[in-house]
Amino acid sequence: MKILVANVNTTQTMTDSIAAQARAVAAPDTEIVGITPRFGADSCEGNFESYLAAIAVMDSVVNYDGEFDAVVQAGYGEHGREGLQELLDVPVVDITEAAASTAMYLGHKYSVVTTLDRAVPLIEDRLKLAGLDDRCASVRASGMAVLELEEHPERAVEAIVRQAELAVTEDKAEVIVLGCGGMANLDEQIRERCGVPVVDGVAAAVLVAESLVRLGLSTSKVRTYAAPRPKTVIGWPITQGPVR
Amino acid sequence: MKILVANVNTTQTMTDSIAAQARAVAAPDTEIVGITPRFGADSCEGNFESYLAAIAVMDSVVNYDGEFDAVVQAGYGEHGREGLQELLDVPVVDITEAAASTAMYLGHKYSVVTTLDRAVPLIEDRLKLAGLDDRCASVRASGMAVLELEEHPERAVEAIVRQAELAVTEDKAEVIVLGCGGMANLDEQIRERCGVPVVDGVAAAVLVAESLVRLGLSTSKVRTYAAPRPKTVIGWPITQGPVR
Amino acid sequence: MKILVANVNTTQTMTDSIAAQARAVAAPDTEIVGITPRFGADSCEGNFESYLAAIAVMDSVVNYDGEFDAVVQAGYGEHGREGLQELLDVPVVDITEAAASTAMYLGHKYSVVTTLDRAVPLIEDRLKLAGLDDRCASVRASGMAVLELEEHPERAVEAIVRQAELAVTEDKAEVIVLGCGGMANLDEQIRERCGVPVVDGVAAAVLVAESLVRLGLSTSKVRTYAAPRPKTVIGWPITQGPVR
Amino acid sequence: MKILVANVNTTQTMTDSIAAQARAVAAPDTEIVGITPRFGADSCEGNFESYLAAIAVMDSVVNYDGEFDAVVQAGYGEHGREGLQELLDVPVVDITEAAASTAMYLGHKYSVVTTLDRAVPLIEDRLKLAGLDDRCASVRASGMAVLELEEHPERAVEAIVRQAELAVTEDKAEVIVLGCGGMANLDEQIRERCGVPVVDGVAAAVLVAESLVRLGLSTSKVRTYAAPRPKTVIGWPITQGPVR
Amino acid sequence: MKILVANVNTTQTMTDSIAAQARAVAAPDTEIVGITPRFGADSCEGNFESYLAAIAVMDSVVNYDGEFDAVVQAGYGEHGREGLQELLDVPVVDITEAAASTAMYLGHKYSVVTTLDRAVPLIEDRLKLAGLDDRCASVRASGMAVLELEEHPERAVEAIVRQAELAVTEDKAEVIVLGCGGMANLDEQIRERCGVPVVDGVAAAVLVAESLVRLGLSTSKVRTYAAPRPKTVIGWPITQGPVR
Amino acid sequence: MKILVANVNTTQTMTDSIAAQARAVAAPDTEIVGITPRFGADSCEGNFESYLAAIAVMDSVVNYDGEFDAVVQAGYGEHGREGLQELLDVPVVDITEAAASTAMYLGHKYSVVTTLDRAVPLIEDRLKLAGLDDRCASVRASGMAVLELEEHPERAVEAIVRQAELAVTEDKAEVIVLGCGGMANLDEQIRERCGVPVVDGVAAAVLVAESLVRLGLSTSKVRTYAAPRPKTVIGWPITQGPVR
Repeated sequence: MKILVANVNTTQTMTDSIAAQARAVAAPDTEIVGITPRFGADSCEGNFESYLAAIAVMDSVVNYDGEFDAVVQAGYGEHGREGLQELLDVPVVDITEAAASTAMYLGHKYSVVTTLDRAVPLIEDRLKLAGLDDRCASVRASGMAVLELEEHPERAVEAIVRQAELAVTEDKAEVIVLGCGGMANLDEQIRERCGVPVVDGVAAAVLVAESLVRLGLSTSKVRTYAAPRPKTVIGWPITQGPVR
Repeated sequence: MKILVANVNTTQTMTDSIAAQARAVAAPDTEIVGITPRFGADSCEGNFESYLAAIAVMDSVVNYDGEFDAVVQAGYGEHGREGLQELLDVPVVDITEAAASTAMYLGHKYSVVTTLDRAVPLIEDRLKLAGLDDRCASVRASGMAVLELEEHPERAVEAIVRQAELAVTEDKAEVIVLGCGGMANLDEQIRERCGVPVVDGVAAAVLVAESLVRLGLSTSKVRTYAAPRPKTVIGWPITQGPVR
Repeated sequence: MKILVANVNTTQTMTDSIAAQARAVAAPDTEIVGITPRFGADSCEGNFESYLAAIAVMDSVVNYDGEFDAVVQAGYGEHGREGLQELLDVPVVDITEAAASTAMYLGHKYSVVTTLDRAVPLIEDRLKLAGLDDRCASVRASGMAVLELEEHPERAVEAIVRQAELAVTEDKAEVIVLGCGGMANLDEQIRERCGVPVVDGVAAAVLVAESLVRLGLSTSKVRTYAAPRPKTVIGWPITQGPVR
Repeated sequence: MKILVANVNTTQTMTDSIAAQARAVAAPDTEIVGITPRFGADSCEGNFESYLAAIAVMDSVVNYDGEFDAVVQAGYGEHGREGLQELLDVPVVDITEAAASTAMYLGHKYSVVTTLDRAVPLIEDRLKLAGLDDRCASVRASGMAVLELEEHPERAVEAIVRQAELAVTEDKAEVIVLGCGGMANLDEQIRERCGVPVVDGVAAAVLVAESLVRLGLSTSKVRTYAAPRPKTVIGWPITQGPVR
Repeated sequence: MKILVANVNTTQTMTDSIAAQARAVAAPDTEIVGITPRFGADSCEGNFESYLAAIAVMDSVVNYDGEFDAVVQAGYGEHGREGLQELLDVPVVDITEAAASTAMYLGHKYSVVTTLDRAVPLIEDRLKLAGLDDRCASVRASGMAVLELEEHPERAVEAIVRQAELAVTEDKAEVIVLGCGGMANLDEQIRERCGVPVVDGVAAAVLVAESLVRLGLSTSKVRTYAAPRPKTVIGWPITQGPVR
Repeated sequence: MKILVANVNTTQTMTDSIAAQARAVAAPDTEIVGITPRFGADSCEGNFESYLAAIAVMDSVVNYDGEFDAVVQAGYGEHGREGLQELLDVPVVDITEAAASTAMYLGHKYSVVTTLDRAVPLIEDRLKLAGLDDRCASVRASGMAVLELEEHPERAVEAIVRQAELAVTEDKAEVIVLGCGGMANLDEQIRERCGVPVVDGVAAAVLVAESLVRLGLSTSKVRTYAAPRPKTVIGWPITQGPVR
């Protein structure tokens, strides 16, 4: 099967690292295609950038030239998943939700450790809407900006471990969710340091996507995620030409 | 003061009708400017269209050539308000929230009557995130598409009244909220027919916006709605040149 | 239009200060009438006093000799608003709710800073019933009694600022609500010191009341707030003779 | 021990019937004293009347000439219990809460059947504040006014049974709570007709009060229900002279 | 009347102490019978032990040779109460719920102080399912294992008092619930030290059970707690022969 | 990898059918072992039977002679999963939770269609504790007993389809979850008839279990699901000798 893993920002190295993380856990016969939006911010750390990314991801996916079996939206706490579900017949999996659902199999409460403090309310809102907040002990910010994760991986690990430890001791989390697509490759180190299971959203989402495809399940089309009604849509898609 | 009233779809006659409704309730010294997005759907009835509208409204507002004191986002249950709040220093008022807040001063429970059934979950989600759902008795669909409201105003009134009556008798609503910017001019008739207060979101939002400006209050910038961090944003704004 | 602003306690200087705050934000053609109950406590800081105030405010309002367009109940977290709504055809606005609703347009979460710790549960209960608690980060007590606010304004500012700062840094509030009618004139100083919007309930409520009147909206009479059924009521009103 | 059972309205026959119901379940060595407020409505069916009753009950209790071990407030869904708790050192039990708590020992969900539709939101609000609403399947109105219960007991039984049956079949209630002090003597008939346990609030509250006294437990005075602070309270109590 | 008080673990001295506490508060004509399960852990401090105890208590009760009027399940936060309700026609009272319900008559919020940290989520889950968590300020662990309570009563008091004080000052609890059947005899000391009412679950449950019996109320059999359907059950009861 | 799929009742044909359903979706290199408890009811339709099953499943699993990588508990809405998590180091997946989580990727709301009405509250409680109830539109009973599903598969399909249709039209479910392990092979027919995705818990749980194993994730042992403390446990396990 083929799964599109959509980065939400325009930083190609981040797409590459997300795709690599996806490939590391995918089944041998699963093809992972990383796609990068053609417009938007080089990192998403707020609502404006997240809304722009929502449209940019939809734009990339509808411009994608080829068949695919599922889409993973690889931004933590970002907007847009519902739009993709309307536009596509294949399953769409948001890493925010896949990570939370996965964590809930592993402990009584989980916490998310993310990048900047300003991203915390976005993540809290996404989990609330997804109905996955009830067992969320806390969403904590490491203070690292998205692009700093790649630049300063050691500092990132330290900052994330510190918050993960507080989540476990203060907030009574039993599982840690990495709240950023760019943290994908840090999970091993953090797991060792914190002594609790660590869930990376990209990895979790790829396995959810594979499972849905194998079960023959996809988005329900009877109400919320029915295809858009036929109507005049000016300027869509925003960009033209095949994304590969 | 000057208030931008942003239509979420590309139908100019709807912008005109929304602006007229806004002017009908605005203070004498308030200038109302209706703006129409330069891309997007001619009506918003789902997540894809709503996300596109979110970006299109932001695009229009940042391209607007002139000063203004507040923005009203005139789409019921639509995405995007949080992005505008980050981009602007002036207050931003979403008609979904203004109508609900206003209704809550008038009765123990309120119901929303909207257009199509598929819009109901979007509205429910917006109210939930806004923390205004606790006293919402129901969100009901009239079955009228957005553009049908203008084409068939009489049928629209009938369909809306029928659901409003059910909201009052079955769901125990004491106030009706009109769940679509395009229903602006129907409130009088529905009020007469249903015997309960009817709140139009555009009217409510204009008065909230005026009040915030008069009180010298605007969006808090300490966390969620801080201005976007300086970074590379490709392709933004989507369109160029002054919107007036 | 004419708005009655009802103090909940029997301290005339507090009525005067509340009325002055109301006049400072009211439209030029709005007449503000401060009324003081004829019985009850000189300050309300608990349930007994609050219940007594509820009846004393209703007693004053039904004894008021003249027409009016709306009533603002100017006690934070007090009982009684629902009773006034039954007795009157004009809109009734409680400063507790007006302040919370207003704060919710300005930030993701708000906190209330009030007087004594014992008032906190009353306020929490009022916000819960009003369905406005979901985005309330915290209700914090400054430790200042109601009458101390007038006697020691500088100490009051210090105590309130200290709690407001904790609300912002610890509880992640983005907006501060002043949780006492007697704090009306402190908002400017606190705003400057805390860097977040500060909402005074009296000011917020006057503008909500004006807005409802301008929109031609008033309390729904179909269920909860229908006029009392005709029956024998012994000893009502408690006092006799016109309140002016 | 001696328990004051406070009627919330001024109808003496109702006080008598409530006291009789209380005596029927009280322990042999428990003295039941029914008290009737000296002002207020002959029946409570709304917020104004309920707020007035709250003060009238407090007025009666503080004027009561003699010692007592507990107070039962015998109005369903009425205001005022918190005020009594501040004024007294002995336990105060509200029949609304005692009935709900008792019902929760008997089935997964319970429903309340009350008098008029307009009383429903008051009861819902009281249960919500008491934190006892989570397992409440519904609050249903029989359409019988309070005083009609005495006048037309047969019609009352029919009307209440009809709603109780709907509560069981439609709302999945497993226990019925009688939502009015004046329904005290109807419980047997309704139990027989509906096949589910029927809880009368007066009976439940008397046994809760006895239990608290036997356990040596009374209201916590550390915060919400601390005695009122010493201050000037004009016109209190409202009436003078011993209530017996 | 006769009440079976079922210990959840196999430690006979704990059964004795629980029965003694029950007798201390029971009415003179109430016979208390302590029963000890014939299999399971010597103390319950986790889900496995609690599930085993659930079955062991049911096994003891169905093997009990004689009539009885009610059962008290004397384990705090343990599984199994719903099963007993299906198997029996007499009322079943869980000390977890009886203590919480009793505490709610006494203050705005209560906290539970229990044994080990690992028991906290079990108690939280039980309170949540019982719909009694809304006014629970916190569940705190003293760090004392169940059997240490008997061995080191002085250290137990110190450890429990420390958490109770934190519950009052930090979590704003106004009442303390002792979250372990084995804490039964510590309530007096803790009450003195903390200045707030202290509720022991065994005592509370015995009085609830007596009250239900006196009111002629028992478990509803129309749905959730209907008797098991006739069917083949292999190996039940687990043990044979009369429990006395 | 090897996954134990534990039936909760003692009916061997049901174990076989569950195991067959598991094998139908498992990866080629996954070995599925169906296990049947050695005591308990031939079908679980209430709390007593469910509690007994909880212990019987734990008894089987600890008696299982051999290594395994994960356990699926294949009873819908049953007790016991938390106990298994304490006893084992490998992941434990409950079909109730796996089905709900899977359904949430596919639509805005899901409904469960189960067997008898008396099972509904158990399922609701399990979903509530799991924090997966927020997007559950309803739990509906088909009226078919567990063992009737095998005996009358055609009637079962009819009865389930009828409730599924009501869930979609009345309750606004967009996805149907089959709320019984014994419905495993009916999903295709129901999907065709209802036009919405249908999720079978056994299939969903097997893929979740495989995913957790592939991700190297298992139950957190830091708090709720830590291994039982060493202590005397009388009569455990209940049965002796290898389960294969």
